[in-house]
Amino acid sequence: MNGEGIVLRVDLNSDLGESFGQYSLGNDAEIIDLVSSVNIACGFHAGDPDVMAKTVQKAEKAGIGIGAHPGYADLQGFGRRRMNMSLAEVQHMITYQVGALEAFTKEKRLHHVKPHGALYNAAAQDHALALAICRGIKSVDSELPLYGLAGSELISAAQEVGLPYVQEVFGDRNYEPNGTLVARTKPYAVITDPTLIAQRVIKMVEEQAVTALNGQRVALTPDSVCVHGDNQAALAIVKELRTALNKEGIQVKTW
Amino acid sequence: MNGEGIVLRVDLNSDLGESFGQYSLGNDAEIIDLVSSVNIACGFHAGDPDVMAKTVQKAEKAGIGIGAHPGYADLQGFGRRRMNMSLAEVQHMITYQVGALEAFTKEKRLHHVKPHGALYNAAAQDHALALAICRGIKSVDSELPLYGLAGSELISAAQEVGLPYVQEVFGDRNYEPNGTLVARTKPYAVITDPTLIAQRVIKMVEEQAVTALNGQRVALTPDSVCVHGDNQAALAIVKELRTALNKEGIQVKTW
Amino acid sequence: MNGEGIVLRVDLNSDLGESFGQYSLGNDAEIIDLVSSVNIACGFHAGDPDVMAKTVQKAEKAGIGIGAHPGYADLQGFGRRRMNMSLAEVQHMITYQVGALEAFTKEKRLHHVKPHGALYNAAAQDHALALAICRGIKSVDSELPLYGLAGSELISAAQEVGLPYVQEVFGDRNYEPNGTLVARTKPYAVITDPTLIAQRVIKMVEEQAVTALNGQRVALTPDSVCVHGDNQAALAIVKELRTALNKEGIQVKTW
Amino acid sequence: MNGEGIVLRVDLNSDLGESFGQYSLGNDAEIIDLVSSVNIACGFHAGDPDVMAKTVQKAEKAGIGIGAHPGYADLQGFGRRRMNMSLAEVQHMITYQVGALEAFTKEKRLHHVKPHGALYNAAAQDHALALAICRGIKSVDSELPLYGLAGSELISAAQEVGLPYVQEVFGDRNYEPNGTLVARTKPYAVITDPTLIAQRVIKMVEEQAVTALNGQRVALTPDSVCVHGDNQAALAIVKELRTALNKEGIQVKTW
Repeated sequence: MNGEGIVLRVDLNSDLGESFGQYSLGNDAEIIDLVSSVNIACGFHAGDPDVMAKTVQKAEKAGIGIGAHPGYADLQGFGRRRMNMSLAEVQHMITYQVGALEAFTKEKRLHHVKPHGALYNAAAQDHALALAICRGIKSVDSELPLYGLAGSELISAAQEVGLPYVQEVFGDRNYEPNGTLVARTKPYAVITDPTLIAQRVIKMVEEQAVTALNGQRVALTPDSVCVHGDNQAALAIVKELRTALNKEGIQVKTW
Repeated sequence: MNGEGIVLRVDLNSDLGESFGQYSLGNDAEIIDLVSSVNIACGFHAGDPDVMAKTVQKAEKAGIGIGAHPGYADLQGFGRRRMNMSLAEVQHMITYQVGALEAFTKEKRLHHVKPHGALYNAAAQDHALALAICRGIKSVDSELPLYGLAGSELISAAQEVGLPYVQEVFGDRNYEPNGTLVARTKPYAVITDPTLIAQRVIKMVEEQAVTALNGQRVALTPDSVCVHGDNQAALAIVKELRTALNKEGIQVKTW
Repeated sequence: MNGEGIVLRVDLNSDLGESFGQYSLGNDAEIIDLVSSVNIACGFHAGDPDVMAKTVQKAEKAGIGIGAHPGYADLQGFGRRRMNMSLAEVQHMITYQVGALEAFTKEKRLHHVKPHGALYNAAAQDHALALAICRGIKSVDSELPLYGLAGSELISAAQEVGLPYVQEVFGDRNYEPNGTLVARTKPYAVITDPTLIAQRVIKMVEEQAVTALNGQRVALTPDSVCVHGDNQAALAIVKELRTALNKEGIQVKTW
Repeated sequence: MNGEGIVLRVDLNSDLGESFGQYSLGNDAEIIDLVSSVNIACGFHAGDPDVMAKTVQKAEKAGIGIGAHPGYADLQGFGRRRMNMSLAEVQHMITYQVGALEAFTKEKRLHHVKPHGALYNAAAQDHALALAICRGIKSVDSELPLYGLAGSELISAAQEVGLPYVQEVFGDRNYEPNGTLVARTKPYAVITDPTLIAQRVIKMVEEQAVTALNGQRVALTPDSVCVHGDNQAALAIVKELRTALNKEGIQVKTW
């Protein structure tokens, strides 16, 4: 799914619909106008049927790519606590959540599926887990692309089962020489300067590579950049990124 | 959806897939061979993604009509405790559960939707609630039939929104003169004699009517009969019913 | 528990600890310094064990009365949707939540229990339900007072089972001539002017009565006033109320 | 807590109250007469407030030791799927569940706390996790004993925080030379012959040691033996064990 034409292209994706009942989270209204695709929570780690209905409606109005964002059934932990589920349990949990979200779309068709939080991180390094996720998606729609960490087990699993995929990169995270993200527990894991983030993303798109923390060049395929709308600082980063991409002539569009 | 040919026909439906995690409920393996359609729990009042996957698979193998059986999000109460939800909440809860179950089917298509427990009972008498349910179904698939109590608000709501429907009757319940079921809290609510139940069903199918507890004739449309597989006594009733229908030349088949 | 000395006294109570996991709700840090007692959510309609631990700690540091705030097991509906539970189910649900919160206190002793939301409103008018709540509390600690709507079934149920109680009034709500609150669906249900609210509370405390919407005098026992910390407007009301009570020489203190 | 008198003594403990709503599990009525202490589920991995109330009542009538059996908040996985929670989250989750169960007892006092399933197994090998559990218990009642795998991190953590403890052994499991249980995934993990199990338990009690799978002698302190009531085979094992202990003159009693 890489752009090979003369005009460079990148997708910007963000998590959406993370509110639940009385609990409000995220700046959905603001982020929705800055990205080309969204990952909508499916009621397990966040979101509820009402939030899903409203969020899908907003995203359809904005004309952006609507993805399911399935996660562990752990609202208290917001899907960020790893759970030791069997592969069959993971597969069925994915099918369930993807089906539930798809039902809210007008066309009964999603643009993609991106696993959430601890599930995403675990599967990026665990091929069997990544396969279970891919099988859960494929059983719903064999043409439905997976969003996964560029170069990770999520991508190789999608390749193995013949599922389309979009490789995701992070402008606000440093990379290890092996292409994984520097763990949040380590120094220099996160980058916060909007200008630097924009420069890094542009470089990734133009060079199909990133410079790891140790200075080494790491090849990757930056199909989509994950951005956040949690707070004003996060929104400022996305705004600066869009302006910079525009100035550079890089198109912001889904694949 | 009434049978109008020379050969009389009736559908037998039963609830299935009500197990949850370590908890096992119902005699799914036995009841599945005795009915023509099933209503599969969708994870809110019973069932989980693993149970749903396995149950759909069994029902597809048996070649019977697969319906979603959405209920209140109340596992402890098994969906039998009425909850005072807004109409929008009900609509979205239905869409969510129908979509989740549909995702487990091979064809991504269900045969019907039958609301469960307290939701079914409440909607049978509450037109606005019944409309919310119908809208939740219609937003997923406008051709997807509702199973509802014959002559109830569920049927009139389906008619109002233009949703197909199947009218359901109960062979093991006595009727009030107005066509509603005698409440379980009242005497003579439930009939337990298998022979009597079979006779009542045959009479309903042949006469398109039932004799109420006070002796009055009540017209109804017996498209489908609700049967149970909870225990051996319930299974015995279904077996006797099938034998009797067969002997009478009434076809057991979905609409 | 009415003040009968020369110095008039009233308790101000507020709901606290309504956050859940990643979801933050309420201005706990600000309201805690303005009230004399708090009602802490117990994990069913809001709150989780971590929020409970932290909130109890804050309230103990502030030296105010710590009450359990049990509600329906309905996080999505925030305990505001009535559920049709059996009386035994209600009783045990109360015991469970009260015990869970009590375990977080240093002294393993609570100051009171106040039912939440739909449960509170339903029980205020349903004597059997109110009795179930009182029995759930009494089975944990027969000396543990119930906070209930002044003059309602909650109070008469507490009297019947011999449970201590504190009568609660609302400064920001209009009253019907029979002593119930004007329903929120009706006009003039809610009062928003801080000065007027303060005047009403002072009048209630001094006259042991309130003027109903139709001008009629309704006797009531204003042991405690329910105040809110949801937003800045709510906090402004509490601040004005405290200042006014202070100026009037009415002591703000638990019973 | 070892018996040091002339009469040898051992406690038999079993999990109880694992039903949930409509879902029934275990042979509580039969196992309750065969054991000296029980571990009652607290509503997170199994059990609900109604089941807890009924189970506590039965155990009080039987006069046996009532323990809380807290587990991960994972009803679908029955607490058998490890969850990556923070230590503070574990501590508060324990406090919550212990408090909730204690509230159902007449004396507001428990006999012990035994962690359930994946939490028990993880903590047996993870000292920090075991400490979090001990702190959660101690914050409720510093005299409340922990039941933990003999010689495991659960026991050393209890020693470290000064919490009383009871060392648990398994008659139906083989041991590794280091005193841990042979993993269920390995051959010879489980012993099913009732006579052999009874012999092993008696030997453990008399010799304060067990013979590991490789023939090596492993010292341990068999304060309590974990037995099961899940099915008739399990019950037969407990019956044979009680008969054998009786014949050998070993008293079955809590510490």
